Amino acid sequence: MDSEQLREYGHRMVDFIADYYKTIETFPVLSQVQPGYLHNLLPDSAPDQPETVEQVLDDVKTKILPGITHWQSPTFYAYYPSNSSVAGFLGEMLSAGLGIVGFSWVTSPAATELEMIVLDWLAKLLNLPEQFLSKGNGGGVIQGSASEAILVVMIGAREKVLRRVGKNALGKLVVYSSDQTHSALQKACQIAGIHPENCRVLKADSSTNYALRPELLQEAVSKDIEAGLIPFFLCGNVGTTSSTAVDPLAALGKIAKSNEIWFHVDAAYAGSACICPEYRQYIDGVETADSFNMNAHKWFLTNFDCSLLWVKDQYVLTEALSTNPEFLKNKASQANLVVDYKDWQIPLGRRFRSLKLWMVLRLYGAETLKSYIRNHIKLAKDLEQLVSQDPNFEVVTPRIFSLVCFRILPVDNDEKECNNRNRNLLDAVNSSGKLFLSHTALSGKIVLRCAIGAPLTEERHVKETWKVIQEEASRLLGK
Amino acid sequence: MDSEQLREYGHRMVDFIADYYKTIETFPVLSQVQPGYLHNLLPDSAPDQPETVEQVLDDVKTKILPGITHWQSPTFYAYYPSNSSVAGFLGEMLSAGLGIVGFSWVTSPAATELEMIVLDWLAKLLNLPEQFLSKGNGGGVIQGSASEAILVVMIGAREKVLRRVGKNALGKLVVYSSDQTHSALQKACQIAGIHPENCRVLKADSSTNYALRPELLQEAVSKDIEAGLIPFFLCGNVGTTSSTAVDPLAALGKIAKSNEIWFHVDAAYAGSACICPEYRQYIDGVETADSFNMNAHKWFLTNFDCSLLWVKDQYVLTEALSTNPEFLKNKASQANLVVDYKDWQIPLGRRFRSLKLWMVLRLYGAETLKSYIRNHIKLAKDLEQLVSQDPNFEVVTPRIFSLVCFRILPVDNDEKECNNRNRNLLDAVNSSGKLFLSHTALSGKIVLRCAIGAPLTEERHVKETWKVIQEEASRLLGK
Repeated sequence: MDSEQLREYGHRMVDFIADYYKTIETFPVLSQVQPGYLHNLLPDSAPDQPETVEQVLDDVKTKILPGITHWQSPTFYAYYPSNSSVAGFLGEMLSAGLGIVGFSWVTSPAATELEMIVLDWLAKLLNLPEQFLSKGNGGGVIQGSASEAILVVMIGAREKVLRRVGKNALGKLVVYSSDQTHSALQKACQIAGIHPENCRVLKADSSTNYALRPELLQEAVSKDIEAGLIPFFLCGNVGTTSSTAVDPLAALGKIAKSNEIWFHVDAAYAGSACICPEYRQYIDGVETADSFNMNAHKWFLTNFDCSLLWVKDQYVLTEALSTNPEFLKNKASQANLVVDYKDWQIPLGRRFRSLKLWMVLRLYGAETLKSYIRNHIKLAKDLEQLVSQDPNFEVVTPRIFSLVCFRILPVDNDEKECNNRNRNLLDAVNSSGKLFLSHTALSGKIVLRCAIGAPLTEERHVKETWKVIQEEASRLLGK
Repeated sequence: MDSEQLREYGHRMVDFIADYYKTIETFPVLSQVQPGYLHNLLPDSAPDQPETVEQVLDDVKTKILPGITHWQSPTFYAYYPSNSSVAGFLGEMLSAGLGIVGFSWVTSPAATELEMIVLDWLAKLLNLPEQFLSKGNGGGVIQGSASEAILVVMIGAREKVLRRVGKNALGKLVVYSSDQTHSALQKACQIAGIHPENCRVLKADSSTNYALRPELLQEAVSKDIEAGLIPFFLCGNVGTTSSTAVDPLAALGKIAKSNEIWFHVDAAYAGSACICPEYRQYIDGVETADSFNMNAHKWFLTNFDCSLLWVKDQYVLTEALSTNPEFLKNKASQANLVVDYKDWQIPLGRRFRSLKLWMVLRLYGAETLKSYIRNHIKLAKDLEQLVSQDPNFEVVTPRIFSLVCFRILPVDNDEKECNNRNRNLLDAVNSSGKLFLSHTALSGKIVLRCAIGAPLTEERHVKETWKVIQEEASRLLGK
């Protein structure tokens, strides 16, 4: 680690990355390589002797970039966005540069304290209830992903209920969610050892715009209690992955509370929008939740990974996840003067991730972030309009945030053929390299998802995107 | 995300970080701030309007750096090192710059394929058995930490045995390790729902240099089987956190195999040394293991996080951790043509972490990496010698790698007083700001740990360190 070498090579890498962004629209958005392509391009073993930065950067250009699917491209619309920004990038650089590991407060007090402060800042921007702030029993923590967020609260909730009913009752614990809930919930159940037959995946359909109906939850909970089972965990959604469905939090939370069920709210994607007063309504009822999650690394200009989790009772996490080996003991921790985030998460080690969120909030400011969100939603509205004006297409679910769900309409009510046609449309537009959409299924219909939210996406990209989709559709429809 | 702004600010940040390394020896190694210090220095809420990069960097200097414990300082000897290097830093930059999320092959084929290739490279450097390579059923994967590595293999092993004996047998599953094993094992047991009374923490002492005695394991396993319990998981150590103890892998593995116990080898710190032929012996017997873990982010010049896990049977992981929601389906995955690392880990999302390991291997080359390891071990030998020459001190366990465990000797056999004195010595040297040591307890003795392994550590630092320790000890001993 030579500071002058770091300076020289670091500058070169900055230029490399800046040039990448300058030319990002020249790459096919979805990588067009075949499985195994890289194996033939790289040697079978590590070199014995050093190679040069030039050699490595050449290889990045000629061998790695063809295998990249360009998430930062302005026409990347698949899944949900994973924002990179100048501020987020600077934060990543600084975090890597300082190279600290902040598992306990003492291992870098600034890392723990900045995280607490910045998560309080964001809780205030979201107008979360006071109990989620760090001054009482609650607080926020940065997890790597929404999957880890849901897992740690599930483990906490599991241990809490098992302390009450005895640890042999694990097989009786029941988890509830709509069938629109992200697969992260299923994975958390698998890891936590919840029996698959005790995972209630409640049907949601177009009648509620794919939101979970509280009656359905109440019915399932009552039935389970009657059967001697123990309802313990509910996941509510604000902005599902398939179609941005929003569950009615207040009504769900009421049922959860009266049955001592942990209520987790997953707003991984849509949470960002809720800093705008006009979208805050979508998390109304969050005061009934025990935990709330939003990914700053999705639609909030903060480079992956930065998943924000707030809990009202931090001790539910620490009672389940704490360890206290001699080699980590220190005065501040032993005196209970500090937060040690190692006990709020799965791993021990943790990077200094609050830096990038802090930089995003400071270098852009809350007003710019609100405009940023509003602009994407406006672009999505424009696209929704374009789709609805085309007689070959339909908007499948009403757009709420910046995701547009649409499909080619069936001909002669042939839904099966229609699904095939939409799959073919997806393949065709993605193979063009001009854009990348993903898909989902809603009530058996194959639906194309256009999630607008990349920092570089402008009106012209959305217009051009729609033209490409229309052209490919015309070809498929033989028009 | 403006490419020219990224260029301008990126260059500024490179200079900031290069300057940090240039001046790193001027900071107190262990942060000297008090709990809550940052709260008073930062505002209560995020700014509405953008601030400038200058303002933020000024705050980093005046408010954040005082709260940093400088892991990259040449006199940081606490815990284990967490290396940062120019190559590792460049890899982090590039990963943040590309901003991809590589959960499935299709989301950036290069990310998955480079990871497979680079983990094969490292497996070959370590001379791991062929079954750990990616060409058969095995393969390597980058986890965030050794804790996640141990958790995913434990979940895989748990599901494998429960498929055989029925899922209601969870309360019968037994885990084995020595009492020197990292707390990551305890945490994995907590998360996986292993009953605490079924965690066999077997005593290791100075008679084996804190290695686990195979007879003790055999005895415990036999007793558990007799009691109707189901032994299912063994964690062996190569280089424990307290004292770098090395368990006898071959003998432990034999017992594991004959009892259908999953055998995980945790070589988080010491694995790096095993690329040197003269240290490879310490993982002899790894051929009996089901999984093997080493942290490239500790002592291998790769910035945190980069924990390398190899398994002989990838399907044990994927059968336990797979999910397959419609919105992630794609042709390459459905046709089983590719690896989707999302099913080898806890989270869904994953950063492009193989880039930094690839850059470390290429920009330094295997021979340089071996010299790097050897140099630290030589420095540790030197320190061991210095300690053993001082009649006030003893080396508590024979040094194996680059960790020296030592203490002030007791006066008049007063062990209690001796422990206090060593605690006071620890506080004194760490408060000096000149270095940072951590401690552990071995058979009730408080022991100071000096883990040499920061990239900037040179002979002069170790000599100066020993002088500081001697001076503080003399003061404490009233000499």
